[in-house]
This record gives sequence, structure tokens and C-alpha cells, in this order.
Amino acid sequence: MRNTNLPQTLRDAMSSIAKMFETHPVRPSSDHATAIECITACYACAEACNACADACLGEPSPGHLVACIRLDEDCADICLATARVISRLTATDKTVAGALLRACETACDLCAKECGEHGGKMPHCAVCAAACQRCADACRHLLKEAA
Amino acid sequence: MRNTNLPQTLRDAMSSIAKMFETHPVRPSSDHATAIECITACYACAEACNACADACLGEPSPGHLVACIRLDEDCADICLATARVISRLTATDKTVAGALLRACETACDLCAKECGEHGGKMPHCAVCAAACQRCADACRHLLKEAA
Amino acid sequence: MRNTNLPQTLRDAMSSIAKMFETHPVRPSSDHATAIECITACYACAEACNACADACLGEPSPGHLVACIRLDEDCADICLATARVISRLTATDKTVAGALLRACETACDLCAKECGEHGGKMPHCAVCAAACQRCADACRHLLKEAA
Amino acid sequence: MRNTNLPQTLRDAMSSIAKMFETHPVRPSSDHATAIECITACYACAEACNACADACLGEPSPGHLVACIRLDEDCADICLATARVISRLTATDKTVAGALLRACETACDLCAKECGEHGGKMPHCAVCAAACQRCADACRHLLKEAA
Repeated sequence: MRNTNLPQTLRDAMSSIAKMFETHPVRPSSDHATAIECITACYACAEACNACADACLGEPSPGHLVACIRLDEDCADICLATARVISRLTATDKTVAGALLRACETACDLCAKECGEHGGKMPHCAVCAAACQRCADACRHLLKEAA
Repeated sequence: MRNTNLPQTLRDAMSSIAKMFETHPVRPSSDHATAIECITACYACAEACNACADACLGEPSPGHLVACIRLDEDCADICLATARVISRLTATDKTVAGALLRACETACDLCAKECGEHGGKMPHCAVCAAACQRCADACRHLLKEAA
Repeated sequence: MRNTNLPQTLRDAMSSIAKMFETHPVRPSSDHATAIECITACYACAEACNACADACLGEPSPGHLVACIRLDEDCADICLATARVISRLTATDKTVAGALLRACETACDLCAKECGEHGGKMPHCAVCAAACQRCADACRHLLKEAA
Repeated sequence: MRNTNLPQTLRDAMSSIAKMFETHPVRPSSDHATAIECITACYACAEACNACADACLGEPSPGHLVACIRLDEDCADICLATARVISRLTATDKTVAGALLRACETACDLCAKECGEHGGKMPHCAVCAAACQRCADACRHLLKEAA
């Protein structure tokens, strides 16, 4: 991998979420570390699930991976919606955000378990399981903090 | 900001895209640095645009920012679709990917210009303009490499 | 409006959801009317919310409509995720689907209320409120049936 | 199928797009039939592709349908982005909309062809091919009208 330029791109990508929160007109001075971690974990999980579903399709016998592909796709959809909703600071409704975070936590836990079972044989499932686990934890953390 | 734990999260988030590409069953050994940069830039831009639209709504006079909010939302939608399509390696169709990358490049260039005009007064627009510019460049780079 | 050809397009659009369910290899013979109604209502609500947010932005004083725009966008994101997850019949996980349907019901109820308050002055909000109400009811109906 | 209540739901769903356009503050009196047809066809195609990918996964040998599933997912992502962008009337940028419509037309044409080849054996692919063809035609029509 010729990825020497990636760390900088990454740092830029992430720091823009933090900067956006710092410069938001409504709640500029709040401490948003837990929300930022949740948003980052949601995008990372959405991408891992999206890529894992495709990698599963590319395996010699994708028929054994149907449950995994299916969960990957559900999880990616829910993570993207969650990342977007949590990122809107102007007037967050706690009931909506809470219900969505619980759906996201549930989907991520389930996908982490399913992908984890294939992780020994298929490294892309191991990567995806780790991303799902981090996202489930981040949702739980934010739910606890916001409660 | 209590974000001391963010860099690790970020590094994890990004490294999972690279690992997913490295472990993909169809093209595991290819050099995907340009695609990874494009995918990362697309997610970062989608999130910056989504957050910038909300930050604009939170400004005292959002009526002056309608063009900006509108472009933010279009750009976020197109960036997310692009990130997902480019991440699927199993059987990429170059015509579809090329057309979508051109749409993404166009939306990002336009949004970078519009947000850039407000960046002096509103820091969230400056952050968003930078994310859009990086994404437009990443799309151009991938289009050139894949041509 | 020169929309004489719309009813046919509509009937086609909808009948394709029903046909897709009828021809699905896993559960071809089930009665999916409640799920189909929920999926249709989710797409219709996602579109109404997306268009209402834009129409609100086009009003002379969008500053008064910030809460409405914000809810519209959350609701659209959650409805789209819900429509996609409920449409995948191969191996639906009831816990994930249930949590997501509750999030969708909550967002739709809230958006119906907010848009309903502006519906007297702004017809696009009245249209959106009706779409949200229908979607909230469809989610409740499916949750009840699947329980 | 106990779907006697579907036609009404459908008519409601569709008429809300038309009503939204009719009541939009920026361009309330325009003739938007072509745009409405395009938006409807995009949602219908996104849903058909999403459901077809899942139905393919449920077939006894999904390994033969990898190209179809992959195209379905790309097509669904691009159609949803297109539907949302075209629905925002406040300040449409023709360059962005044009590039996206071309990407959508390309993806739909390709997916219609791929699904069409399996349509004889798998009815869900035939339904999906028809939805893709209608959407490709609707994009071409709107591109021509807006040129």
C-alpha cells in the first residue's frame, strides 16, 4: 500500500468534524467529544459494512454469507442516518436521537457478532466486526451521557 | 474540547478502509491509495456539508444562507453515494463510476466556492469549503488515474 | 399541472414493490400488505420531508422555520433507512427492525406535529404533516403486527 | 395479497410530490410533470434495486448473481441521491443536476440490461429491469427538457 499520505488526510477529515462543532452558532463551546466519537464511529462502521458486504459478494461461495451481507447493509443504512441526525446540533430532539441510537446500537451489536464468527477465515469480516463493536460502544456511551 | 482520544479513533476509522481493501477477495493486492483518499474525502465532505447546513440554519439570519444550505445538502447526498459506489471493488463499472465522480467533483467545486465566500464571517463555512475542495481534488485525481 | 400521465407511473411504481414481494425467493407467498404500506409511506414521507425542507428554505423568512427544517431532515434520513431495512426480506432481525420502526414512528409523529402547526399558512407543511402522520401510523401498524 | 388498500396509499404518496411542487414558494406555478416523473421513477427504481439485491441473495445460488447485486446497490444509491437533488427547487444548479442525471441514466441502463438477462428465470429481476428502464428514460427526458 502506497498510503503514506493517508494519515494527514485522516487527521484533516476528523478534525473537520471537531472544528464544525467548535464553530457551530448554537452550541459552540460545548464539550462534544462523545458525540464526535459517535459520529466518527458511525461513518467508519457504515463504510466497513458497505465494503464488507461487497467483499463477501466477492468470496468464492457468497451463499454462506447471506446473513452477514444482509446485516452489513442494514447496519450501514442505520449508521449513516444516525451519523447525520447526531451531527445536527441546532435543535436535537432527545427522543428521536435516543430511539435511533438504540436502533444503531442493536444493529451494530448484531453485525459485530455475525461478522465476528467469520473473522477467523475472512479478514474483512474481522475488520468489520471491530468497526461495528466500536460503533455499538460509541452509541451506548452517547445514550448514557445524554440520558 | 476534551478530544484527546480522537486521534486514535480516527486512525482506527481510516485504517479500517485500508484494511478492507487489503483483504478484499477480488483485488487484494492492488494499490488503492487514490480510491481510499477519494472515499475518505467523500465521507468527510458529506459530514462537513451536513453539519454546515445545520450550522447555517442556526445563524441569526439563515435567510442569507439559502444557496449555501441548498448546495450543502446536494453535495452531502452526492458524496455519500460516491463513497459507497467507489468502495465496492467486486465489479466496478467505469462508466457509472466516472459519471458519478464527475457529478461529485462538480457539486464539491460549486459548494467550495459558495461556502468559501462566507468563510470569512462564518468559520463553519470555511471548514466546509476546505472539505469540499479536498473532495473535488480527490475525485479529479481518481478520474485521472482510472481513465 | 400537466400530469395526466402520473397515475399510471404511480401505479407502476407501487405495483413493483408488491411484485417484488410476491416473487421473492424466501417468502414469496406471505401476506405483506402491512409491510408494503409501511415501505411506501416511508418513501413518500422521506420525499415530502426533503421537499418541505427545501420549500421552507424558499420562504421569505426561513428563520422562523428552523425547527421544521431540522425535523424534516432527520425524518427523511430515518424514513429512508427504515424503508430499505424493512424491504429486505431474506433474514429480517426483529429487534433491529423494531427499534428502527420505533425511531421512525417517533420522528414522524414529531415532524407531523411541527409541520401541522405551520400548515395553515404554508400548504407544503400541511402536505408534509399528512405524509408524516401516515408514516407514523404505518410504522405503528407494522410494529403491532410483527410483535 | 390483501392489498385492496394500496391504490389509495399510492395515489396519496404520489399526489404529495405533485402538491409539494404546486405549493413551493419559489416556483409554485411551473409545470413540473417531467421532474415529478423523474423523482417518482428514481424512488421506485431505488426500492426495486434494493429489494432485488435482497431477493438475489435469497436465491439458492447467489454466487451467479454477484454482478446483478452489485449493480442493484450502486443503482439504488445513485437513484436516491438523484431523487433528493431534483426535488430541491429553491436553487437548482443545472450543471450538478445534469451530471447526476447522466450518472443515474448510465447506472439504470446498465442495471436494466443486467437484470433483464436474468428476468426470464427470476421474476424479481424482470420487475427490477422494468423499474430501471423507466428511470433511465425519465432521466433522459428531464435532461432533454432542461437542456
